[in-house]
Amino acid sequence: MNVSPIIATMIGDPCGIGPEVTIKALAEEVGPARHLLVGDAQVVRDAIALTGSRFAVHAISRFEDARFEPGRLDVLARGTLDPGAVSIGQLSAACGKAVTEWWNLCIQLAMDKRVAAIVKAPVNSEAIRLGGGASVPKTNTTYLFLITGPLRVVHLTDHIPLRDVFSHVRKEVILQALRLIHESLQAWGVPAPRIGVAGLNPHAYGTEEQFEIGPAIELARELGIDAYGPVSPDSLFRLCVEGAYDCVVAHYHDQGHIAVKTWRFDGNCALLLGEPYLGISVAHGTAFDIAGKGIADHRSMTAAIKTVSMLAAGQGFPGE
Amino acid sequence: MNVSPIIATMIGDPCGIGPEVTIKALAEEVGPARHLLVGDAQVVRDAIALTGSRFAVHAISRFEDARFEPGRLDVLARGTLDPGAVSIGQLSAACGKAVTEWWNLCIQLAMDKRVAAIVKAPVNSEAIRLGGGASVPKTNTTYLFLITGPLRVVHLTDHIPLRDVFSHVRKEVILQALRLIHESLQAWGVPAPRIGVAGLNPHAYGTEEQFEIGPAIELARELGIDAYGPVSPDSLFRLCVEGAYDCVVAHYHDQGHIAVKTWRFDGNCALLLGEPYLGISVAHGTAFDIAGKGIADHRSMTAAIKTVSMLAAGQGFPGE
Repeated sequence: MNVSPIIATMIGDPCGIGPEVTIKALAEEVGPARHLLVGDAQVVRDAIALTGSRFAVHAISRFEDARFEPGRLDVLARGTLDPGAVSIGQLSAACGKAVTEWWNLCIQLAMDKRVAAIVKAPVNSEAIRLGGGASVPKTNTTYLFLITGPLRVVHLTDHIPLRDVFSHVRKEVILQALRLIHESLQAWGVPAPRIGVAGLNPHAYGTEEQFEIGPAIELARELGIDAYGPVSPDSLFRLCVEGAYDCVVAHYHDQGHIAVKTWRFDGNCALLLGEPYLGISVAHGTAFDIAGKGIADHRSMTAAIKTVSMLAAGQGFPGE
Repeated sequence: MNVSPIIATMIGDPCGIGPEVTIKALAEEVGPARHLLVGDAQVVRDAIALTGSRFAVHAISRFEDARFEPGRLDVLARGTLDPGAVSIGQLSAACGKAVTEWWNLCIQLAMDKRVAAIVKAPVNSEAIRLGGGASVPKTNTTYLFLITGPLRVVHLTDHIPLRDVFSHVRKEVILQALRLIHESLQAWGVPAPRIGVAGLNPHAYGTEEQFEIGPAIELARELGIDAYGPVSPDSLFRLCVEGAYDCVVAHYHDQGHIAVKTWRFDGNCALLLGEPYLGISVAHGTAFDIAGKGIADHRSMTAAIKTVSMLAAGQGFPGE
């Protein structure tokens, strides 16, 4: 029997657009999975009313009680969120504290293999700080993977000054990343991942290409990894949009982010490659200014849920 | 009497797609200008036949003989191109030599103010080299300006290694460029140009923003230049696409090129800001593989001709 994977979605900051885009997304076709919400039952009920959806709510306090019945959303809560703390569009320390607890619960469920993947609706970092939460620093062995439709970009470095990028462009580091990408994509249902690798300099012509990036690609190919490049950075991302690669590798934050955010912002979601679990988040924020009005665009949330549903089921990335 | 500007268009390498895309573009609405071709009359006749256009050809050897009559293309030739040298889809030294002469003639017409702007259809750099032509190096006081629809990007540096960019991110250099951009756009019919300036680091947060880019923008604003930023590089280009700026400034080749080429390749054209004349070229090549088949996409050529026609007429940039 082929049981569909379970995806736990954390509803995001109750004062922002998270709950409403989550409900709107789950009302659509979101992949081959069973879905569970983590958050507050009353907040979910309010979001259902706001969006005019037809879901019933099944509030549970233990994962084991989830029933995954059609038309009914299991909402797993930990702790109690004071309804008075939820003021739509306002910063709330209580909500910041709640989302930290909810997300930690999601991570625990994923680490325990009770769920196949976890999804994070928009949270507010200032609310989390007010609620006493600490941001967990990204480790050196995880890589930001931005996904928007066919454009899928792994970033080898993240929030560091451009000047400091050069010391990270190292053959061994790139090879290790290519192995991780190859294995991750295979596990997600892309049997022979085609990986395009950016150069660092204009037209991929420079010393870093010659001594670090090129040799890393050669070594990867000797290992049976279908890596291409170094490709001129100004061509690589368009080629990926057109389907030449399953994903591409960028050496620095803006090399990838300029491509993704200029090409298309909607449907943009992010995961950390190399985490011990599969987790995804949407690339936009809580949008306090339009929260509670039912007008928030839910395409990124739909993309996030659908993407991890398919990856967890070993079906590869969604098509456009 | 308001006389429309004269635009001279060089037909490009006769062995490539230049002549056919030129004819296709001129058959469309290409702005408030009178048009003159520079090249070979027989090559133009062949391109008219190939594309099924209705133009007649008026071969002239002196600029003064141009008549700009509707339905008839004045083709100004210098020297004689041996018809035997034109083999569609093949590298030709004779064609390389011819396009060098034709383009030099265009520059002379522009320097003499006989034409208001010049347009270069695709040439082949290898053919030019075989024909004895030398590429003219870009000077330090001109800046590559890529234009594709609403996305218009001035590049402060071009083909240099990424490592060498930092020494060019200097307050005085940026300020000088902002003045040039401001004055150029005003002359072209954008009365109060809104200029977005990229940061250099992720989220525009770093020492270069603090000590060079930010102060340059402040100084520019004191001079009455409507400069904004430094803006996070991963947001700037999308904001420009959405109409927030009339043009934006990129500090390095790929910062701008990734945005332009990932967003949309068609309609992409380039000019050098700071030249003593207004000249534009299309961003694609001679495409020998599809030349002479009548299937080449002429949208970039149309955009190039229409853009300089409008700029030369002081009407600003074309809308989308």
